[in-house]
Amino acid sequence: MALSSQLLENAVDQLATLPGIGRRTAMRLALDLLRREPHEVVRFSEAVRRLREEVRYCQECCNISDRPVCDICADPGRDRSMICVVEDIRDVIAIENTRQFKGLYHVLGGIISPLDGIGPEDLHTRELFARVAKGGIAEVVLALGATLEGDTTSFYLHRKLGEHGVQVSVIARGISIGGDLEQVDEITLGRSIADRKPYEQSVRR
Amino acid sequence: MALSSQLLENAVDQLATLPGIGRRTAMRLALDLLRREPHEVVRFSEAVRRLREEVRYCQECCNISDRPVCDICADPGRDRSMICVVEDIRDVIAIENTRQFKGLYHVLGGIISPLDGIGPEDLHTRELFARVAKGGIAEVVLALGATLEGDTTSFYLHRKLGEHGVQVSVIARGISIGGDLEQVDEITLGRSIADRKPYEQSVRR
Repeated sequence: MALSSQLLENAVDQLATLPGIGRRTAMRLALDLLRREPHEVVRFSEAVRRLREEVRYCQECCNISDRPVCDICADPGRDRSMICVVEDIRDVIAIENTRQFKGLYHVLGGIISPLDGIGPEDLHTRELFARVAKGGIAEVVLALGATLEGDTTSFYLHRKLGEHGVQVSVIARGISIGGDLEQVDEITLGRSIADRKPYEQSVRR
Repeated sequence: MALSSQLLENAVDQLATLPGIGRRTAMRLALDLLRREPHEVVRFSEAVRRLREEVRYCQECCNISDRPVCDICADPGRDRSMICVVEDIRDVIAIENTRQFKGLYHVLGGIISPLDGIGPEDLHTRELFARVAKGGIAEVVLALGATLEGDTTSFYLHRKLGEHGVQVSVIARGISIGGDLEQVDEITLGRSIADRKPYEQSVRR
């Protein structure tokens, strides 16, 4: 697509670098931005630039946080002997919404993905091992996606954390609550049969 | 969604102002930007800011153009007696790709949409009337979307252009070429029956 404007071409190129945004959508976004007041677009552009330039992470759990220690890590009511390992801040929000976990988190900032060139050293793994090495941690709960990358990351962390003698657990996989059996994929269904448990233990509390 | 970072909150808020981008997608985009090198995000942010601040429009057709007169308006091979009126630059690209139109364009920069508070004065309508008033224009082709807003805009332009005594036409509406009859909505089908033409005229040249 040869455009009559290099400025437009550049903006479309940049918007199209966003995940899930093709050139056609990028053009729609660029034309929408063009219809706004200049100061609105400056506010947009500044919010994005400042996010990357000024972002800070919690010293403890590596979650994105404006304060040196995030609200969760600073909360004296949390169980400091449990660490739940997640990929990013979205997972922290999702798990907090369940109100089922009272421990602390550790945010990796991604998962191991050889195809994307992301190895353990690109994630906040060293900080996790340092936390565990300091002692006082009874259990590390791995709460990563049930994907190839998630499983690879869990396997790596399990092996490395084993060296520290800490108990490592993985969140349960199985059929969704409210889910119909015939709509579940066969790998999940097979796994949920293999991982069956006594009825008395399966009743929701 | 209360986030642990105002910087992240701001960026997500701004990204979510883009059309078709909800807060969930905006969060995904923000986390993607956070994983990039700072200079890459500066390039992204600058491309967007500069687009709005430095954008220039063709003096003739109001299309986005880095030069005072765009390549199409400057082309001596184009038929200067015909003007095709379109909503934005995407339509110019689409029509150019058909290679069926050899005249000039006029880009409105939007369409009349009372619900969005967009009236004729917010579009490049005055420039269109000025072009027609200068004379030398035999026909104005309205090539706007077959929507309520497109029809409203066509009706307005037809009425105003009538005062200048210029011929105003509208691009044909009907069933798509390659389209199955049973998949066409009934309004389009009804219209295409009412607008039928002699077989001899309907054969594609």
